[in-house]
Amino acid sequence: MMRRLDSGRLWADLMALGAITESDRPYTRRSFSPLFDEGRAWLTERMRETDLVTRVDAAGNLLGRRGGKHPAWPAIVVGSHSDSVPSGGRFDGMAGVVAGIGIARALGERGIELDHPLEIIDFLAEEPNEFGLSCIGSRAITGCLTAEQLSLTSPKGETLAAAVGRVGGDPAKLPMAPRRDIGAAFELHIEQGPVLEREGLDIGVVTAIVGITRLEIEFQGSAGHAGTTPMQGRRDPLIAAAHMVGWVRQTALELAGAGRGHFVATVGIIEALPGGSNVIPRSARIVIDARSEDRRSMEEFRARLEAESRSAAQAAHVECSKLACLSDNLPAACDAHLQAVLRDSARRLGLRARSLASGAGHDMAFISQVAPAAMVFIPCKDGRSHTPEEWATAEALTAGAEVLLEAILEVDRTTASP
Amino acid sequence: MMRRLDSGRLWADLMALGAITESDRPYTRRSFSPLFDEGRAWLTERMRETDLVTRVDAAGNLLGRRGGKHPAWPAIVVGSHSDSVPSGGRFDGMAGVVAGIGIARALGERGIELDHPLEIIDFLAEEPNEFGLSCIGSRAITGCLTAEQLSLTSPKGETLAAAVGRVGGDPAKLPMAPRRDIGAAFELHIEQGPVLEREGLDIGVVTAIVGITRLEIEFQGSAGHAGTTPMQGRRDPLIAAAHMVGWVRQTALELAGAGRGHFVATVGIIEALPGGSNVIPRSARIVIDARSEDRRSMEEFRARLEAESRSAAQAAHVECSKLACLSDNLPAACDAHLQAVLRDSARRLGLRARSLASGAGHDMAFISQVAPAAMVFIPCKDGRSHTPEEWATAEALTAGAEVLLEAILEVDRTTASP
Repeated sequence: MMRRLDSGRLWADLMALGAITESDRPYTRRSFSPLFDEGRAWLTERMRETDLVTRVDAAGNLLGRRGGKHPAWPAIVVGSHSDSVPSGGRFDGMAGVVAGIGIARALGERGIELDHPLEIIDFLAEEPNEFGLSCIGSRAITGCLTAEQLSLTSPKGETLAAAVGRVGGDPAKLPMAPRRDIGAAFELHIEQGPVLEREGLDIGVVTAIVGITRLEIEFQGSAGHAGTTPMQGRRDPLIAAAHMVGWVRQTALELAGAGRGHFVATVGIIEALPGGSNVIPRSARIVIDARSEDRRSMEEFRARLEAESRSAAQAAHVECSKLACLSDNLPAACDAHLQAVLRDSARRLGLRARSLASGAGHDMAFISQVAPAAMVFIPCKDGRSHTPEEWATAEALTAGAEVLLEAILEVDRTTASP
Repeated sequence: MMRRLDSGRLWADLMALGAITESDRPYTRRSFSPLFDEGRAWLTERMRETDLVTRVDAAGNLLGRRGGKHPAWPAIVVGSHSDSVPSGGRFDGMAGVVAGIGIARALGERGIELDHPLEIIDFLAEEPNEFGLSCIGSRAITGCLTAEQLSLTSPKGETLAAAVGRVGGDPAKLPMAPRRDIGAAFELHIEQGPVLEREGLDIGVVTAIVGITRLEIEFQGSAGHAGTTPMQGRRDPLIAAAHMVGWVRQTALELAGAGRGHFVATVGIIEALPGGSNVIPRSARIVIDARSEDRRSMEEFRARLEAESRSAAQAAHVECSKLACLSDNLPAACDAHLQAVLRDSARRLGLRARSLASGAGHDMAFISQVAPAAMVFIPCKDGRSHTPEEWATAEALTAGAEVLLEAILEVDRTTASP
């Protein structure tokens, strides 16, 4: 296996970036916070050391660019995000940004000049934040950030537009038109799931980023005294809600096995009110997170969920008072050609790879709307993410970055532009 | 139908007592509060007007006594409680105390002297309170209040013993020996359930006060990312908890129909942690309130619940990490002879009565341990209680009090004492 990347340097960069954290709540570096600015200043220095020309675009993304032989050609992008969730890890997002800088460094150190420009991007605010909107930077440069979203307000009363300005963006130029100058985009990310580790593989080539649909169901019945209200004649909404919890799992198992790709559905929130041990609940609520790489599966799930909720309400003599879609994102397919390039690159490097869907959202879901986009997953310990225990090895990180570099060289070589 | 009680006076008393409430949170008059003292002062005046000799016993119960022809004979007791839950009603407890005073008044106005002493009791702190212990006064005079319970502490740091002293009791004499000087005890109470109203009846003669068993079940699994963790291999504890919610209802329906009297079971509390829409729960917890007038039914329920919890955990690949009994009270049978006297009294008064169990706890559950005890239920609107909308009519209240008076006269006449 040909090694082009300095694994020790890559790892040192990742750990140094991770060390920029709220000290009493590692690892936390939330977007729009002073620590986020500190992380960005550190990244900017690393980019400059690597002879990248840095700037912050109107959307607040941090870009480091190397012009290539044909600076006007569409760019090859490598990007991810440097912000974290509260009490998150040091890999989710950061691994992809650091890998991009490592790739630029390897090209520079070896005197390799690409035909195409290369852009390393730290996308702004990929994680949920105080504006309640994720993937802000990638939404913006793909024309998906609306004026309405820009006026979202944080609990402190700041608008999203103002916050974007505060990190160096230009709110006056927002919403912006989609970028049309990207030739190919790549992202390296930890899997955040157990599949690669369980199967002993080095590389996951992402087929699609699932669509995420969040649904809320509320049942209303009649509160009553838990002792004096006979079982017959009760109108207990928790009976219907509990039934739906089991149904969601059964139906998700069925759709996951239907041969139409990744499908999962989870009830993470359940609430019965008033919530006293001696009171029959008057209302019960569940929130369902369903994810599919196949839109038809999601549509089937939603239709069946609606029918089942109605029949569960009827059986429990309660009302299905709410069946709301809280959010609904379409799945995003990764570019088939770039997937093939990534698979070939892994094979040439002697790495064991498989294709799999991403069950989590990523900036590439937006970028795929304006350019061919693809992702490489690396295995992470126990599939865990969004926790301080999030972990991947230096070897896994280096292997993923090597695959990206191999693929970038291939794309640069074989893509006649423009 | 012979009317001995002044319905207008009874109703006026009840409304006047109800008006002693936290003004911004009607109807609230919690035990040990200044308003509770105010209510007691008002009750003491009414008792004195009725020629009852008042005192507060060592346990903090307010007693109004009329000696009868044989003051040393065992007393006939009529009692309930004047404290309320927060945002409760004006009938639960108060109706029974006011009825007792009304009965004493009717006897006095008609110059009827009983053979036995008559005692009207306002039992201390029947409702849950800041010491987390209900039926404090009736526990105490039946020898059921322990030294350990007396050192329970309120959030403000006051011990229960000190609080009992503050309302006029004598903590130095607590715990006290059970009273052995009660010949018969009666309580009038609103049903707090829908049965009498639904069946168009005037009077419920209580067969037993259910035993109440509170159980907590906790399942532990593995938290995980709701998007990236495949359905196969998940360890989702909410699946097991939701299964148990449905099982509790099914099994309670079965036991309620088994011909062994009142049985109900309710899941009023359910919790999944961490409680994020995109996180598979790591733990799930339910609290079960089960009530039975037949101890064998309760024992069967508990045994089956344990077995089912284990098998639900196994099916969901999680652990049943807790199966705790939070509290467990035995059912208390009402005295068979007094029940017959109450049924006959209702019949003689031309009232429609039925026997039924009490699904709620009452002071008479404790009193039944030291004396023959019985209860009369009157219908309440929509079976509702512990809410400002709690309601019963003046006619229903008067009918219940007439039945009690009739029964007291019968017991006094037919009981040879000592």
